[in-house]
Amino acid sequence: MSTASSPASEPTPPSGATSPYASPSAAALISAVDTYDIRFPTSRQLDGSDAMNPDPDYSAAYVVLRTDAPDGLEGHGFTFTIGRGNGVQVAAIEALRPYLLGRPLDALCADPGTLSRELVGDSQLRWLGPEKGVMHMAIGAVVNAVWDLTAKRAGKPLWKVLADAEPEWIVSQIDFRYIADVLSPEEALRMLRAGRRGASGREAALLERGYPGYTTSPGWLGYSDEKLARRAKEAVAEGFTHIKLKVGADVADDIRRCRVAREAVGPDIRISVDANQRWNVDEAIEWTRALADFDPYWIEEPTSPDDILGHATIRRAVGPVKVATGEHVHNRIVFKQLLQADALDILQIDAVRVGGVNENLAILLLAAKFGVPVCPHAGGVGLCELVQHLAMYDYVSLSGSTDSGSTDSASTESASLGARVIEYVDHLHEHFLDPVSVRDGRYDAPRSPGFSATMRAESLAEYRYPEGTFWAAELAAPTLAAPTGEAVA
Amino acid sequence: MSTASSPASEPTPPSGATSPYASPSAAALISAVDTYDIRFPTSRQLDGSDAMNPDPDYSAAYVVLRTDAPDGLEGHGFTFTIGRGNGVQVAAIEALRPYLLGRPLDALCADPGTLSRELVGDSQLRWLGPEKGVMHMAIGAVVNAVWDLTAKRAGKPLWKVLADAEPEWIVSQIDFRYIADVLSPEEALRMLRAGRRGASGREAALLERGYPGYTTSPGWLGYSDEKLARRAKEAVAEGFTHIKLKVGADVADDIRRCRVAREAVGPDIRISVDANQRWNVDEAIEWTRALADFDPYWIEEPTSPDDILGHATIRRAVGPVKVATGEHVHNRIVFKQLLQADALDILQIDAVRVGGVNENLAILLLAAKFGVPVCPHAGGVGLCELVQHLAMYDYVSLSGSTDSGSTDSASTESASLGARVIEYVDHLHEHFLDPVSVRDGRYDAPRSPGFSATMRAESLAEYRYPEGTFWAAELAAPTLAAPTGEAVA
Repeated sequence: MSTASSPASEPTPPSGATSPYASPSAAALISAVDTYDIRFPTSRQLDGSDAMNPDPDYSAAYVVLRTDAPDGLEGHGFTFTIGRGNGVQVAAIEALRPYLLGRPLDALCADPGTLSRELVGDSQLRWLGPEKGVMHMAIGAVVNAVWDLTAKRAGKPLWKVLADAEPEWIVSQIDFRYIADVLSPEEALRMLRAGRRGASGREAALLERGYPGYTTSPGWLGYSDEKLARRAKEAVAEGFTHIKLKVGADVADDIRRCRVAREAVGPDIRISVDANQRWNVDEAIEWTRALADFDPYWIEEPTSPDDILGHATIRRAVGPVKVATGEHVHNRIVFKQLLQADALDILQIDAVRVGGVNENLAILLLAAKFGVPVCPHAGGVGLCELVQHLAMYDYVSLSGSTDSGSTDSASTESASLGARVIEYVDHLHEHFLDPVSVRDGRYDAPRSPGFSATMRAESLAEYRYPEGTFWAAELAAPTLAAPTGEAVA
Repeated sequence: MSTASSPASEPTPPSGATSPYASPSAAALISAVDTYDIRFPTSRQLDGSDAMNPDPDYSAAYVVLRTDAPDGLEGHGFTFTIGRGNGVQVAAIEALRPYLLGRPLDALCADPGTLSRELVGDSQLRWLGPEKGVMHMAIGAVVNAVWDLTAKRAGKPLWKVLADAEPEWIVSQIDFRYIADVLSPEEALRMLRAGRRGASGREAALLERGYPGYTTSPGWLGYSDEKLARRAKEAVAEGFTHIKLKVGADVADDIRRCRVAREAVGPDIRISVDANQRWNVDEAIEWTRALADFDPYWIEEPTSPDDILGHATIRRAVGPVKVATGEHVHNRIVFKQLLQADALDILQIDAVRVGGVNENLAILLLAAKFGVPVCPHAGGVGLCELVQHLAMYDYVSLSGSTDSGSTDSASTESASLGARVIEYVDHLHEHFLDPVSVRDGRYDAPRSPGFSATMRAESLAEYRYPEGTFWAAELAAPTLAAPTGEAVA
């Protein structure tokens, strides 16, 4: 393993001009790789409870790439977990430190793909996956932190860095191994060139009107019917036209909860349902049909994310209800097959499950090739902050061109966004320096340079486990109540 | 998380009578969970080199479950890795400690399945997979260590514990989640009952003649042609009728090496080839066809282990060469689909990649249902020691009954073993207390109680990283040469 080798080739960096970060020393290096085990005690309120995950403590295995650049440039990234095991995830990120320490900053920012390929290709680390689970998510955290550096250095939000980049450079960032039978570099280049047609109109529309979101906040499984109805109505009042309910623990409860939600929001609001992998294939079909009276838009994660053929079977059986999955799909190879097998109506990328921005670029291209809309998974800790960049890039410069040549912003959007929508959950944003802004049910496009990944120093100091101020006090003398409400499943 | 909860049900334990371990205190508990980061410097000789893994340092994330039983009973288990990242794997095993400490030994031994389901079902740890990668392999190490306890307590080698167990009990050990669409508990029970027909004859044949092996020792990619030819001839002289060569780095080299091997062993010895995931789908097809003149028996790991549909495409294209995979297939759900998609001729279980014995029982049943022979992956550190038990159980009490009702041992074997063969690699066995015994190209059935997983105390003391005597000396003043031979790939 080489810890400071030069990349074999250095594609043209994305251009950037007016950044506060744009005054690098050519000799700047990665000077430290600091990790943090951050845990929020979310299990106390059952926010985030679902049929598979009754008591999550939303957590982040967080990494900061420090540099010796004169401007103090830092790259931030993380893996999202739900509590136990967050320390294992931190250990996996630390195992990557030798790849980063002392590495020249300019080359890293100009070409994150070389680092990405080195990490994914390390034969010894690869044995622990390959390309899945703890080690692959650790690679994703580090690669995303490098993209944060790249975007800060370019003085642009990440979505804009990607939208402005030359198609050839985007292609250079993608690992086509194991997907070349379906998507070649040449075809990717053609798609990226075509994707830019009308980009300036879509960018103007995005900046003016934002990007539509949907909200999962009303529908956590631990909530009472009253809370569900109240929060569903609040979501509609806030401008959302699409909400999501957790299902899968008890079919009678789910029928009742879907009725409560449908009566609360009326027939014109989309209601999707999410089983969080709770079912076998046959159960998924029966259960989804049992909810059909309430017109669910999609059924999400009906079974194991590994079951490509199972998703295809379910999709054939439950139409017109759409099938959605992706937040636990571990790499581009599984997404490739879900698309090949006609197993998906909606592809849900996650910003931190796969190997970072580079692998998500491959996944966005695969989805575009098959004409399947991408509706990102978010929520958790910082997932909204990260994934908005990928969705906005996809809209402006990749898949948004498919249906429209109009330059009128409102009609451009309605024609080319189609079903695309980013998940939104209204918690934990206060811990981020550049939190998402969602108004009238729509995400504002981020304007600040970077990947919106940076957590506030106060939050890191308070929720670092076990030594942060919150946990030190809690572990010394627990003061918080046990989880409230009935335990689910 | 409950650290000492009773299992919800306790199936009848397998019977055992004359064990040196069979004098438990009913109150015995798991008293300690000790872990070891064990690394062997195998990269010095390029043993184990292949197209994807040029310089492995064979390693084990090793765990010992200590008890307070009067007889000092211990359960041993491990994950095999190839060097870097072994510490991450140890951290993952340590994250499971709260599930084990203080747990009643009797209940654990009587029913490893309850622990297995609790670990796989822990919602927070599950987020790190689910059921894949570092956390799933950690679960496998711990579950296998419990099976070591179970077999020692029963006074039998593990294969015999399984072969003697009631079909109902075996069914109780299997998690049918996500495979029930293909294999129901009821069908599994019918198969297990049928599988026992003729078991005593097969057991006698196994004890008399052993179980056939094949050897990968001649064919590592780092070896010269001379060494390849010499070791291939030696393998035949030792009684092997099936050898395997690593391929995939350079097609001209592979053609030459296959010719060397075929000329060395003649036309009657099976030669399989192994690409270790090196190829895309199209490359796999072209490359395998380029080697067809040398009559390869199977092509192993032609592409990503995640690419179910890719394997199916390759299999349709390369016949009569068989397609084999499995050592990196991460769970029963992927195996289910490889079988559903007709993607495999040979299914290669690995003892430590999935969630332990319980998940491998599910995989053996799936293979038997589809009539696909199981030829286990082995080599590494201790993989031969473990997996022989699973293959021998499969033969005696599950799939061996398919083709034969004969009680004559030689004809029983030839009729019912079919293509079944266990991989053998002749290194690192000296570190185990109960190493495999391979004579005339055949594995002797293990006779000692347990899962053959226990490493010698001296080996643990010498190769524990970084504080063991070997590594302390090496890190203080490196004395070994760098890897020898030409780098591959």
